[in-house]
Amino acid sequence: MSKEMQKVVCLGGGTGVSVVLSGLKKYPLDLTAIVTMFDSGGSSGKLRKELGILPLGDVRQCLLVLSNEDNLTKLFHYRFGKGTLKGHNFGNLLIAAAIGATGGLNKAIEKISEILNIKGKVVPVNLENADIVAVLKNNKKIKEEEKIINCSYLSKVGVKKLFLTPEVKANLQAISAIEKADLIIIAPGKFYTSILPIFLVKGISEAVRKSQAKKVFICNLMTQVGNTDGFSVEDFLTILEKYLGKDVIDYVIFNTGKLSANQLKEVKRVFPKADFIKYDKSLLKMKNFIGADVIDRQIQKLNPADILVKGANKRTMILHEPNKLAKTILNICE
Amino acid sequence: MSKEMQKVVCLGGGTGVSVVLSGLKKYPLDLTAIVTMFDSGGSSGKLRKELGILPLGDVRQCLLVLSNEDNLTKLFHYRFGKGTLKGHNFGNLLIAAAIGATGGLNKAIEKISEILNIKGKVVPVNLENADIVAVLKNNKKIKEEEKIINCSYLSKVGVKKLFLTPEVKANLQAISAIEKADLIIIAPGKFYTSILPIFLVKGISEAVRKSQAKKVFICNLMTQVGNTDGFSVEDFLTILEKYLGKDVIDYVIFNTGKLSANQLKEVKRVFPKADFIKYDKSLLKMKNFIGADVIDRQIQKLNPADILVKGANKRTMILHEPNKLAKTILNICE
Repeated sequence: MSKEMQKVVCLGGGTGVSVVLSGLKKYPLDLTAIVTMFDSGGSSGKLRKELGILPLGDVRQCLLVLSNEDNLTKLFHYRFGKGTLKGHNFGNLLIAAAIGATGGLNKAIEKISEILNIKGKVVPVNLENADIVAVLKNNKKIKEEEKIINCSYLSKVGVKKLFLTPEVKANLQAISAIEKADLIIIAPGKFYTSILPIFLVKGISEAVRKSQAKKVFICNLMTQVGNTDGFSVEDFLTILEKYLGKDVIDYVIFNTGKLSANQLKEVKRVFPKADFIKYDKSLLKMKNFIGADVIDRQIQKLNPADILVKGANKRTMILHEPNKLAKTILNICE
Repeated sequence: MSKEMQKVVCLGGGTGVSVVLSGLKKYPLDLTAIVTMFDSGGSSGKLRKELGILPLGDVRQCLLVLSNEDNLTKLFHYRFGKGTLKGHNFGNLLIAAAIGATGGLNKAIEKISEILNIKGKVVPVNLENADIVAVLKNNKKIKEEEKIINCSYLSKVGVKKLFLTPEVKANLQAISAIEKADLIIIAPGKFYTSILPIFLVKGISEAVRKSQAKKVFICNLMTQVGNTDGFSVEDFLTILEKYLGKDVIDYVIFNTGKLSANQLKEVKRVFPKADFIKYDKSLLKMKNFIGADVIDRQIQKLNPADILVKGANKRTMILHEPNKLAKTILNICE
């Protein structure tokens, strides 16, 4: 590691990137979140459709986790419970107002980064609206993030191809951050709707491939019902490599920890079909596969005010433990 | 004047109190705005009906004018132009979210006062929802702020009585500020819907009467079509005294300035029937009536995004000039 602050770029969706960054922000690192922008449901999706702006939920989460104004975060997470505002997240409304007042998303994020006094930078991966399309192996097309997430047979039929419509180019700020990075982390998250779409944005895969940074992929903890049923660590990597390129990833971090019987019961009550991601025992002996107990044993609750999101399976109940994860990541760099 | 910072309390609606305070905030004074809470229309009225909270527009304006974060004010004034958020003022949504997140209006205002780094204090005159009712001299009742403002024959028929339904008690913070005040200012503003209703809140008139403070009434510049047609400075004072008590007001500040022909034409284009408030020349010789040119010659524009407000006559086009007004007020205290 050089004596300058190490530049860390983390790519993914709001929840996954937040977990990674909330651990890393305690270290003297130069952090950039590059955030997926293809949400079609929830408060973000509603604002997107009504105001013609990009979906803001993932950006909001990343801004909040990097904020040093703890005092403000409760307010920014607040969801309205009544009237025409019902289900809207206040943070989303703030960013939407800032876009209107400043004239664009990059400027709005700059403004809010000041207000929230954030450590690091949040960069939308693209600046024009686009939707994800999944072409299944039976040639059926499923369009839009929300529909893909709620598709119960995506992994059963299999995904032949994923693309964005229209094709969109990368935000130049994202490319620049990737080029300068010392470490690139691909966060855990919804694989087909948060993670892979980032590499469909023109310029991103190429920039990651060319970058001199170490590249770390953090595999999910549990399968996502309908989307990644039965997937193993190796399956995730193989599919990621299809979009990012072979032998680009230097390290894969995967979880070896388990939940208690009671904890597992609580998760299974909501997601009966969800399972821990399996892995071949041989991975434990390979130096580029880092198995560690990185699980957070505090089960996430669903927010009853979160009514704009269709299907409870949108929200993840089991997350990585930020401090363990940060230590595991930083061990790689030593 | 004592060597301690003089305590100034200003009562009224959002626009009038803002004008008074934006001039006074440049002086070393301890400022408190006590704000009318009976709006039923606009973005405030919509949030009031949908969320069951008090109308927030007047509080918002006062918070903004006392803010030292110029950087934030553009954002807080922003109005959404599309979708279900159309017409909503972002500042109102912020206060509404803060009420939800903190559990009450006083706490929400405290929170936002911190965020906006405000000089002084903003205090809602009451904390429970109520509506204004005007009983006309023909015994017709007109209920709700928006309907009273838009009533074209209020001054023609004459108001017999004004009351609140339900009766509401004063916010204790308002009473306490009035008790401690060195100077109490009654701001200009919509007479029947912003100014007089404050004195209908139980405890306010009595507290003002008992207070040792100097009491100054700042008379409006122009008549409000339908509500105060033909009113003179003396008419305003007589009616105010009906609610506040006789001989309570120590000084009346009234405008003697005029607009240029072109400026007047611009105002008359929107409000053909509006007139300058007349006054008897004899007032100019009385020591408690302070005639001064306190008019701002910059005509206020109407905001096209302000679509939740019924009737353009809701928005005032001619305002007091804050610096001239502040000097005139402070002259009294010397």
